[in-house]
Amino acid sequence: MVDLSQLTDDEVFRAFASYATIILSKMMLMSAATAFYRMTRKVFANPEDCATFGKGENAKKFLRTDDRVERVRRAHLNDLENIVPFLGIGLLYSLSGPDLSTAVLHFRIFVGARIYHTIAYLTPLPQPNRALGFFVGYGVTLSMAYRLLKSRLYL
Amino acid sequence: MVDLSQLTDDEVFRAFASYATIILSKMMLMSAATAFYRMTRKVFANPEDCATFGKGENAKKFLRTDDRVERVRRAHLNDLENIVPFLGIGLLYSLSGPDLSTAVLHFRIFVGARIYHTIAYLTPLPQPNRALGFFVGYGVTLSMAYRLLKSRLYL
Amino acid sequence: MVDLSQLTDDEVFRAFASYATIILSKMMLMSAATAFYRMTRKVFANPEDCATFGKGENAKKFLRTDDRVERVRRAHLNDLENIVPFLGIGLLYSLSGPDLSTAVLHFRIFVGARIYHTIAYLTPLPQPNRALGFFVGYGVTLSMAYRLLKSRLYL
Repeated sequence: MVDLSQLTDDEVFRAFASYATIILSKMMLMSAATAFYRMTRKVFANPEDCATFGKGENAKKFLRTDDRVERVRRAHLNDLENIVPFLGIGLLYSLSGPDLSTAVLHFRIFVGARIYHTIAYLTPLPQPNRALGFFVGYGVTLSMAYRLLKSRLYL
Repeated sequence: MVDLSQLTDDEVFRAFASYATIILSKMMLMSAATAFYRMTRKVFANPEDCATFGKGENAKKFLRTDDRVERVRRAHLNDLENIVPFLGIGLLYSLSGPDLSTAVLHFRIFVGARIYHTIAYLTPLPQPNRALGFFVGYGVTLSMAYRLLKSRLYL
Repeated sequence: MVDLSQLTDDEVFRAFASYATIILSKMMLMSAATAFYRMTRKVFANPEDCATFGKGENAKKFLRTDDRVERVRRAHLNDLENIVPFLGIGLLYSLSGPDLSTAVLHFRIFVGARIYHTIAYLTPLPQPNRALGFFVGYGVTLSMAYRLLKSRLYL
């Protein structure tokens, strides 16, 4: 066993680890929300899922789509599309030696913007609330990517 | 060039690397499975994909959806939604100095649960087989997230 | 604060950071492309998004699907399905001490193949252009996974 404290004592890395864990946990909640709406509204995508609610033809009526379920699924996919770049670029950015307060500001704004995006999507709030949440998070990731590519390009 | 052996000699990190590679390779198989079903069942999403099977109106009949293909695609998306949090949280957890046997137990259960989930989805097995695979994997990731946030929160 | 230069001076890791940032930025462009097509073609998935174009029944006609928008979304999802394994496996591969020129060759081919895949998908070019882009990127990721599992398996 080796001492990894060099990496894990780094404050920027610790901050990244905390915010990444929070935003990934929030994303996982979307799975639970989808499951919740599917069960309470009896809306399923697979025949085997509605076996408890009826047999044969009777079960088929639960194989349908529902606005509420589709909305949660779109919010989940949007999370995935935006959190994956944040994780990749954010990890590399954390290791590139940024200023602590600048880095923490990036992470905080991103996490706040994505939580706001989810609230705006699921309520739903009128536009441009959701667009605002989306573009703020998008801008934060691009800002980290810009710093990475400017300072450390190796091709 | 520098010696990275400090990181790569760490046993928890090596275990994480092995299990992450295995589960990502499994996820990549889903792309191959989708391509296989699309070719053998002649079910396509893009007009250019069915050009070899016919021209013009004749080709359009292959632009359709198919239960089997949609099932593989749902299993693939579910993998993506669950493996992304595992990768992010698992990497940070591996670097936070957990006990080796506890960490390996987490990784093993997660990989086993996701493989079981795929088998249950594609066979398909009756519920609650698939739900079990899903929730066991979900719980493992939450358990690592909990440990990370409890011991190393930095906000 | 600690000196992370050991990790960030490693040339393979720096190369991975550069290529990963480039391909993630390219993936983020797909979100912008979807938003662009949704706005210019007035094709929306949520009622609140078309409020500026009309009220009530008048707005509902914009809640539809469009070939062009669906094409961008499929390309985006395919990116996600392939870039996630590249990020996970590529990061672990970079830390496993590969030869610099071999590693850079892997990263370059992957990034080139995925950019070609996107061009072939959105133009669209006739098959097998898109299939070629897909399978080359797929092969690069599998090649890195194979090297990782061969040399460093820990179960």
